[in-house]
Amino acid sequence: MTRWLDADEQRAWLRLAGVMLKLSPALDSQLQRDSDLTHFDYLCLAMLSDTEGRTLPMSELASRTNASLSRLSHVVSKLERRRWVARIPSPESRRVTLVTLTEEGWDVLVKAAPGHVETVRELVFEGLPPEDVAALERVAGHIVERVEASRLRTTT
Amino acid sequence: MTRWLDADEQRAWLRLAGVMLKLSPALDSQLQRDSDLTHFDYLCLAMLSDTEGRTLPMSELASRTNASLSRLSHVVSKLERRRWVARIPSPESRRVTLVTLTEEGWDVLVKAAPGHVETVRELVFEGLPPEDVAALERVAGHIVERVEASRLRTTT
Repeated sequence: MTRWLDADEQRAWLRLAGVMLKLSPALDSQLQRDSDLTHFDYLCLAMLSDTEGRTLPMSELASRTNASLSRLSHVVSKLERRRWVARIPSPESRRVTLVTLTEEGWDVLVKAAPGHVETVRELVFEGLPPEDVAALERVAGHIVERVEASRLRTTT
Repeated sequence: MTRWLDADEQRAWLRLAGVMLKLSPALDSQLQRDSDLTHFDYLCLAMLSDTEGRTLPMSELASRTNASLSRLSHVVSKLERRRWVARIPSPESRRVTLVTLTEEGWDVLVKAAPGHVETVRELVFEGLPPEDVAALERVAGHIVERVEASRLRTTT
């Protein structure tokens, strides 16, 4: 027996599908046009810039950017060719690879950040009341947790 | 002066980025695996199935699937080669092209729907209280409207 969506869920679902179909390309196109970056490139640089020593293990960067290790590895190689990040062996374990943001990568991020943040503010937060900011965090967090839990179930 | 995101906005934003990065691939992979469809293919068939006569003008289907006309046109051609939809001239205006769902397309949708809806329910709505369903509709609707308004501003 399929449990179909009720009318409220259906409306909410179509809106969320709209966000996925429209917001991602809009963010990508501003970053591409102004900074030659995809939104995912930006997220990698931003997550590194935001940690002590601007360095993270690959697995931790994957988790903070919501990416699989294979997708991240592909993007890190691209960013490495541009000299914006570097892979370095972990001094603590041979099995761990670290990624570090270079000075050039930091400069790229600093230049890209104002335009990107303005776009996010304009497309998402402008006119959104504080209780809806909280609701967005709660609902989106719920969805991310459910997707992760389902991925764990199917891979084990 | 860049108006940076405050801590609440920053947290909400990272969660929403997570939804865009994780939910889309999860939906695509279930539909691809079980029905050989992308989520966007599915949305096109579903929007057509849901109208009187299972037929819509291209421009109206573009708006209901949150897509640009050029993206939609590409996908409609693919679905047409599979004989799931057909383009027909409008009896009312030569400048309008209609898309109609074929019987084969309807059958494909009817077979795909239960698995897709179960996935949406599992990844999004399971455990989400009714007030958060309403909040999701409200916040996602707000974002879609802002992206559309900004697109209008940049193209005019």
